[in-house]
Amino acid sequence: MSTAKAMMETYPGEINLDRTRLAAANDALTACSASCTACADACLSEPMVAELVKCVRTDLDGADVCEAAARVLSRHTGYDANISRALLEACAVACKECADECERHASMHEHCRLCAETCRECERVCRDLQLAMA
Amino acid sequence: MSTAKAMMETYPGEINLDRTRLAAANDALTACSASCTACADACLSEPMVAELVKCVRTDLDGADVCEAAARVLSRHTGYDANISRALLEACAVACKECADECERHASMHEHCRLCAETCRECERVCRDLQLAMA
Amino acid sequence: MSTAKAMMETYPGEINLDRTRLAAANDALTACSASCTACADACLSEPMVAELVKCVRTDLDGADVCEAAARVLSRHTGYDANISRALLEACAVACKECADECERHASMHEHCRLCAETCRECERVCRDLQLAMA
Amino acid sequence: MSTAKAMMETYPGEINLDRTRLAAANDALTACSASCTACADACLSEPMVAELVKCVRTDLDGADVCEAAARVLSRHTGYDANISRALLEACAVACKECADECERHASMHEHCRLCAETCRECERVCRDLQLAMA
Repeated sequence: MSTAKAMMETYPGEINLDRTRLAAANDALTACSASCTACADACLSEPMVAELVKCVRTDLDGADVCEAAARVLSRHTGYDANISRALLEACAVACKECADECERHASMHEHCRLCAETCRECERVCRDLQLAMA
Repeated sequence: MSTAKAMMETYPGEINLDRTRLAAANDALTACSASCTACADACLSEPMVAELVKCVRTDLDGADVCEAAARVLSRHTGYDANISRALLEACAVACKECADECERHASMHEHCRLCAETCRECERVCRDLQLAMA
Repeated sequence: MSTAKAMMETYPGEINLDRTRLAAANDALTACSASCTACADACLSEPMVAELVKCVRTDLDGADVCEAAARVLSRHTGYDANISRALLEACAVACKECADECERHASMHEHCRLCAETCRECERVCRDLQLAMA
Repeated sequence: MSTAKAMMETYPGEINLDRTRLAAANDALTACSASCTACADACLSEPMVAELVKCVRTDLDGADVCEAAARVLSRHTGYDANISRALLEACAVACKECADECERHASMHEHCRLCAETCRECERVCRDLQLAMA
């Protein structure tokens, strides 16, 4: 069980979202943020970095958006569905763009292949949680 | 001139957004993130903190979303309008919710009054920039 | 295997740190950041929140410092031991202070008990990695 | 007057640091984080990006460390001098390393020149505040 999930179980109030989907989203967002940060750094070490600058950029965006979303989604006090909904949308978009870009380099760079996979999974669980909120 | 604006002038490539509105958005996002972080902390010092917990929460969300947006919007390499657009929407929503909540306490707490003002201004410039991108 | 560890294996260059300790630190920092964010939010939902404001504050600090450190430590390009070293020190201090504060409430609040545990473990692995760097 | 400074004036409790130096540090940290994020992005747009990867990396570190420090230093509730002190040290180190690296490219790239200047100033005010805390 992830730390985020274990902490969720200790929340003293009610949680206004499907707990299983919420925990899945939290874990996926954290994993995606980590993989984006690492992929950006790995791209910087490739001799062909000049062809990877858009990948670095979408990685950096992905890391920032996913990190913010992971924080917001792990808050339940004074819950506001509007913020969560809009941020999940931004996350799904950022993850999709980053996955698309990483996939273009996946056959050459294992870090891009793995990061694309993590972003795609994060996009999927964000969309799942959005549906569960509707 | 803010640091963000001065740095924007040194960007070696093209910038695909209205520079004046973009710089205004960047400055407003940075100011909003700072004011949300400070308001959350000030609320924690109020004897009536129990009545301010929703305010602390929307402050924390506001700080996280605005900070992520300020970063994303100050990147121009490999620009992707979809990410900026979705994130501006999330920011405008987060700022509106935080402004609404802070306004409820504005007559009692100067930090809430000032933070509401900063959030409202940030919501406005995010909406402006969204329109300029359409 | 955590995402951070899997991504580390794909890094195309050399890594100037003990990989096992580094991966452990990365995972502990991410877990600590998540548990601090969640504990701050859980404290806000407690009826006795007024007695937990210092805990909220050290939680927020812990989340911010651990998140920054997790990012810095997962970068290997242009590695600079001075930054890693100073940031690990700041992390160990922030985790210690947060663990100390959470422990004071551990018998009453399960979220504080669990967060104290996560912070203490993070402090330990940060110190381990510092030693491995000496 | 910056937003951070204006908000500081509304804090309902005591502030255990020299307010002028603290406000200067907050402003410098925010400016430094913004300039590091922008310099990293500008470097990615340079045709000679391959020679700038260490600069991108120290920029990213500088942005993360300064942002975390700006947040921690704008919290006064449950103030803990140990965390502030260790984080100021980490910041001063990260700013120094980033300034050193940016300076190496300052004659060729205006964004590096400006970022070096901002980092150097931030290092200076972090050291000033450290002294004021001793």
